[in-house]
Amino acid sequence: MSTWVGDVHGGDFPLEQLPYGIFSASGSQPRGGVAIGDFVLDLSRLPRALLPGAEVFAEPTLNSFLAEGRRRWTDVRETLTGLLRDPAARPEVEPALLVRDTVSLHLPIEVADYVDFYSSQQHATNVGRIFRPDGEPLSANWKHLPVGYHGRAGTVVVSGTPVRRPAGQHHEQGASAPEFGPSSRLDIEAEVGFVVGTPSQHGRPVAIDDAEEHLFGVVLLNDWSARDLQAWETVPLGPFLSKSFATSVSAWVTPLDALRGARCRPPEQEPAPLPYLQATHPWGLDLRLEVEINGTVVSRPPFATTYWTPAQQLAHLTVNGASLRTGDLYASGTVSGPARAEWGSLLELTANGVDPIVLGDSTSRSFLQDGDTVRIRASVPDADGPAMWLGEVVGTVLPSAG
Amino acid sequence: MSTWVGDVHGGDFPLEQLPYGIFSASGSQPRGGVAIGDFVLDLSRLPRALLPGAEVFAEPTLNSFLAEGRRRWTDVRETLTGLLRDPAARPEVEPALLVRDTVSLHLPIEVADYVDFYSSQQHATNVGRIFRPDGEPLSANWKHLPVGYHGRAGTVVVSGTPVRRPAGQHHEQGASAPEFGPSSRLDIEAEVGFVVGTPSQHGRPVAIDDAEEHLFGVVLLNDWSARDLQAWETVPLGPFLSKSFATSVSAWVTPLDALRGARCRPPEQEPAPLPYLQATHPWGLDLRLEVEINGTVVSRPPFATTYWTPAQQLAHLTVNGASLRTGDLYASGTVSGPARAEWGSLLELTANGVDPIVLGDSTSRSFLQDGDTVRIRASVPDADGPAMWLGEVVGTVLPSAG
Repeated sequence: MSTWVGDVHGGDFPLEQLPYGIFSASGSQPRGGVAIGDFVLDLSRLPRALLPGAEVFAEPTLNSFLAEGRRRWTDVRETLTGLLRDPAARPEVEPALLVRDTVSLHLPIEVADYVDFYSSQQHATNVGRIFRPDGEPLSANWKHLPVGYHGRAGTVVVSGTPVRRPAGQHHEQGASAPEFGPSSRLDIEAEVGFVVGTPSQHGRPVAIDDAEEHLFGVVLLNDWSARDLQAWETVPLGPFLSKSFATSVSAWVTPLDALRGARCRPPEQEPAPLPYLQATHPWGLDLRLEVEINGTVVSRPPFATTYWTPAQQLAHLTVNGASLRTGDLYASGTVSGPARAEWGSLLELTANGVDPIVLGDSTSRSFLQDGDTVRIRASVPDADGPAMWLGEVVGTVLPSAG
Repeated sequence: MSTWVGDVHGGDFPLEQLPYGIFSASGSQPRGGVAIGDFVLDLSRLPRALLPGAEVFAEPTLNSFLAEGRRRWTDVRETLTGLLRDPAARPEVEPALLVRDTVSLHLPIEVADYVDFYSSQQHATNVGRIFRPDGEPLSANWKHLPVGYHGRAGTVVVSGTPVRRPAGQHHEQGASAPEFGPSSRLDIEAEVGFVVGTPSQHGRPVAIDDAEEHLFGVVLLNDWSARDLQAWETVPLGPFLSKSFATSVSAWVTPLDALRGARCRPPEQEPAPLPYLQATHPWGLDLRLEVEINGTVVSRPPFATTYWTPAQQLAHLTVNGASLRTGDLYASGTVSGPARAEWGSLLELTANGVDPIVLGDSTSRSFLQDGDTVRIRASVPDADGPAMWLGEVVGTVLPSAG
């Protein structure tokens, strides 16, 4: 589709994407916008006659808009698409366009609860082989339910926020006692995150085929992980401080409506899951991730290979009656494809630090060093044209405070 | 101390306690108050000249007041104590008193992040013996750090809210595949919860001796647990749906300032914890819990026996740089004392359902039945007078929706 906004082509937020974010310009209050090409459209500045209810975008998070529900999301998207296509609308809309390079981007949602799944079979198998070399790599439940756990919502940060290396307890093999200090095994996990808009009632599970009513959109996510802290703390109740220091998300939330073309059949599930996990329509997503460290692409994880889909995750999350709130965020878990060049963490890429990777500047990495910059991007292939890019999640490692 | 408010004696919220809550009366907006004897003092209705800044109590949660910090908490408490002692203040204060029986109580805080610890040595030992009869009951890390995990903040409910029995996957021993259905092993966990007021900066650990600056007060908490769901899902990432369906807290938050007399030396810690977990002042609390099922007291867990203190939990929670937010809630984990009559869950009291307990009506329970009402209370012993009670957390089990 064409728009009167200049310089819009694949990779630079085409008209088909219109991702939502929260931005501020020259010290103004953060407010809602959509990205289009090299610009941000300030939705709070659109005349109400063009976008009824635009005042919701004057708020500093997208939550109120997300709470309005699927019909409204579709309406607003159609309205914006029309305004950006119609040359007659240009005189009224153009004053609300800002050059994207000149704005600051903020955390787009106030995160309610954050859940991290573990839904890539290759990743779970890789991790199982590293940590339980003599056992079955997958736990007995893994093919029956999407394994997941709650993470810390208060430390979800927007792309670009520096990430301080955490300190904590670690216990070296053979040592008599744990030591305290900065993590020496700081890692990344390349993931895709899902943002909940419409809440659900406490005590009432969400049927898998209703997932679409609740799910607003998609972000990229880096689940920073301190492997040494994790190894020591994780038995018996799971990861805690090894993950809770920071989780980074992309500034732009791409609506599910923009990803219809990316929907694909997920991997075959054997054994067949229980009925509450069986969807009528396929919920796979053909997103192609790219992980860069200091400019060197170290992995290209294919999201389409993920075993459990976002609809299955949502149905599982609520099957016990747990309610959804606007702003809930849940992530796929590390995305790893079958090939080594498709693995989404350094833990896997370096065989737990044993076999370092080499970057473009000829330095090697077993885990992250202070000053390293990690960038995760994802494209949506389009047979008819250039790929659409989902934005990026970037973070640079700061030295420990300790 | 005496007050001009009638009918105030130990057990009925004496002047020394002044717990905060959110209430509504005859359909009015929820707002903040303190309990005093058989009354609630509507803080939003106090003349500003008596309580400067009282408008913060017109809000439907205590969060804004909690964000104001320790000095303000102490000031307000001193002001309220003075007003309730001084007969000259009575004409202006008495119109803001409502009979407690006539008001509805609401969730007092908007919960930011919820963390559940596992800090009773007796409880962790009991659970270890049940689930790992051939191994060490305590995991290797247990005496080095307060083991904990994040729970679901969005399903924390106020005392009195019915709790629907969750459905989910469970896997019977010897079965070839999991089954789906209502939990048949619904349990309680009697815990004490801690409410964070003052936030902390991301990337900056909170020193253990600064815990007092951040911690506002104490609630009672029931961490409802579906043991069959838990057994199947918990490896490798910890409890998830077995806990996330509901967590109940008392409606009244007792400020830490009211519990100075309850502070006691916690159990000796051997080995000595790492320096960041060593506090200058003792942080044990002599709270005596009482667990009732359908009116029969089934256990009296002594909180003073808890191994890890709330200050240690707070220091651990943030040592990796994770920030605190106003409204963060963290709980002790099940409180279990050395004697069997002091164990805080049915899992322990019935040896995982093998050895049912008998209630006052001669019926027996291995786990909870639909219609059962669980009530957890706690008293603070006072050598000089009657015990102070911390309110209660009550819930009745509804049948599964499935």
